[in-house]
Amino acid sequence: MISNVEEVYKRIQSTINKTPVMTSSTLDGLVKAKCYCKMENFQKTGSFKFRGAFNAISCLSPELKEKGVTTHSSGNHAQALSLAAKMAGVKAVVVMPENAPKIKVAATKSYGAEVVFCGNKPTDREKTSDELIERFGYTLIHSNNNLDVIHGQGTVSYELIKEVGDLDYMLAPCGGGGLLSGTAIATKNLCPNAKVIGVEPKNADDAYKSFKDGKRYLVENPNTIADGLRVSLGINSFKIIKEKVDDIITVTEEEIVDAMEFLWSRMKLVVEPSGAVSLAGVLSGKIKLESKRIGIIISGGNIDLTKFFSHIRNKIE
Amino acid sequence: MISNVEEVYKRIQSTINKTPVMTSSTLDGLVKAKCYCKMENFQKTGSFKFRGAFNAISCLSPELKEKGVTTHSSGNHAQALSLAAKMAGVKAVVVMPENAPKIKVAATKSYGAEVVFCGNKPTDREKTSDELIERFGYTLIHSNNNLDVIHGQGTVSYELIKEVGDLDYMLAPCGGGGLLSGTAIATKNLCPNAKVIGVEPKNADDAYKSFKDGKRYLVENPNTIADGLRVSLGINSFKIIKEKVDDIITVTEEEIVDAMEFLWSRMKLVVEPSGAVSLAGVLSGKIKLESKRIGIIISGGNIDLTKFFSHIRNKIE
Repeated sequence: MISNVEEVYKRIQSTINKTPVMTSSTLDGLVKAKCYCKMENFQKTGSFKFRGAFNAISCLSPELKEKGVTTHSSGNHAQALSLAAKMAGVKAVVVMPENAPKIKVAATKSYGAEVVFCGNKPTDREKTSDELIERFGYTLIHSNNNLDVIHGQGTVSYELIKEVGDLDYMLAPCGGGGLLSGTAIATKNLCPNAKVIGVEPKNADDAYKSFKDGKRYLVENPNTIADGLRVSLGINSFKIIKEKVDDIITVTEEEIVDAMEFLWSRMKLVVEPSGAVSLAGVLSGKIKLESKRIGIIISGGNIDLTKFFSHIRNKIE
Repeated sequence: MISNVEEVYKRIQSTINKTPVMTSSTLDGLVKAKCYCKMENFQKTGSFKFRGAFNAISCLSPELKEKGVTTHSSGNHAQALSLAAKMAGVKAVVVMPENAPKIKVAATKSYGAEVVFCGNKPTDREKTSDELIERFGYTLIHSNNNLDVIHGQGTVSYELIKEVGDLDYMLAPCGGGGLLSGTAIATKNLCPNAKVIGVEPKNADDAYKSFKDGKRYLVENPNTIADGLRVSLGINSFKIIKEKVDDIITVTEEEIVDAMEFLWSRMKLVVEPSGAVSLAGVLSGKIKLESKRIGIIISGGNIDLTKFFSHIRNKIE
């Protein structure tokens, strides 16, 4: 639970991918600033989530490692915990709703975790994982309440700042707040004058509202293409965000797709909708960024391309 | 026209992008070898073609630069020459058939070149560019007959070998043969024991047949998704390929799409069909690569995503 960013980084450094920083003169021209995109789509399992999951497992005592870990997630955290556990030689059990997309279930299993299905109501997940913990003594590795997970996510900014030097702004997407809170801790530690901005889909703006009012709201009917950001802010992540984040802004669905198209078409990078949200914030013009040095965390690249490629295959046959 | 790879590299080094080398443990596991993907989709204008075009312009005398350059192309070479000329302060005129895709015409113009349209027959292009050369004294920068273009393309391998060290195999896609011949010159120069393999779509296998029979055939009805490889082998590129390339193999349309899907889905890289052809060769199993160190030139990422994104936009509205 220590927040020494350097120590956290040393712990996981040899296991995580040091992801590349990508720049684009076209992007710099549009924003009239120097933009550094930190590409976590190239992280193991396709998103930053691997950093936090692996750090949290690494922090467990030998006794707890022996018993195994669990989480409830149908997204990138599930895949990340699955691989992180396998690499650490620890058993992982992931709770997923019965209606989770098959491709996500398959991906989680492919990395080695056992999947236990629960009902489709949001409360079913916790109930099932609580039962598992009670029965088998697993440790819950929560994606945005676990402080070791949060500190692990902070290594994204750590690597970025170590590579490119001091920044004026650091933008990260905000869903459950694990990445944003970790980003704020690491960025303020290394580069205290940098402003840390969270970017959230307007259609899932619980963090925006919570930040403005200083009390935690839960997300309701999050109708956003950014599937990784449909969750509510965590209790611990919100505490850190209130204390360390400078602002949260929101972006529309159109702005998210525009940013995604820029990343794919101009920068040749496969990024999932959630991963394009911080760039959407930069391109939205809602913050004055002219002449600044800006870190933009592109958080992941897990998007189902099955239909796209079956369409291409139909054309060649 | 000198073939000293190092000298060519020094000439263009400060203008080209030093593109990243990407690796994938999944890919290495599949091939049972160490694979180094050289990502020219991140090159200026989205393909390796910028290297050759800029080198060729840089080699012109001040008098010829003053007059301007021309080429006939509706693909990546057109865009590359357009930007290379702009950056060198040289006028560029690109001849394109009237039925060239609008998006390619727009891209070429956006980089600064003047576009002159000609008829849609293959012979119309040369006729029109010959007339322009006659009338205005432009220098023709041909994509696979110009030796300075060929040497410029060789800097892809130069950068790759300088970064990762000696290789056992180097694979490059083959269309007009500019990249493959340049690759062979540079690779054999730096790493004489490495085998250089050209990979060509089976549905446009003029280079394969020419290489086997030792005489140049023209491509007929090249019905391949790899639009950048639908052209015939050039006279000069073929001479070099005959002398320096170890083998040419072919891949099916399905193998090309499979390789492209691997790059997009697993490696999160937007690569055009032509750009995935050398990886298709690696994955096809047609060469024994086990335990080898393999350079794989991923040549470009220019693919029209307009439909893909308009489909996504329809879903959010």
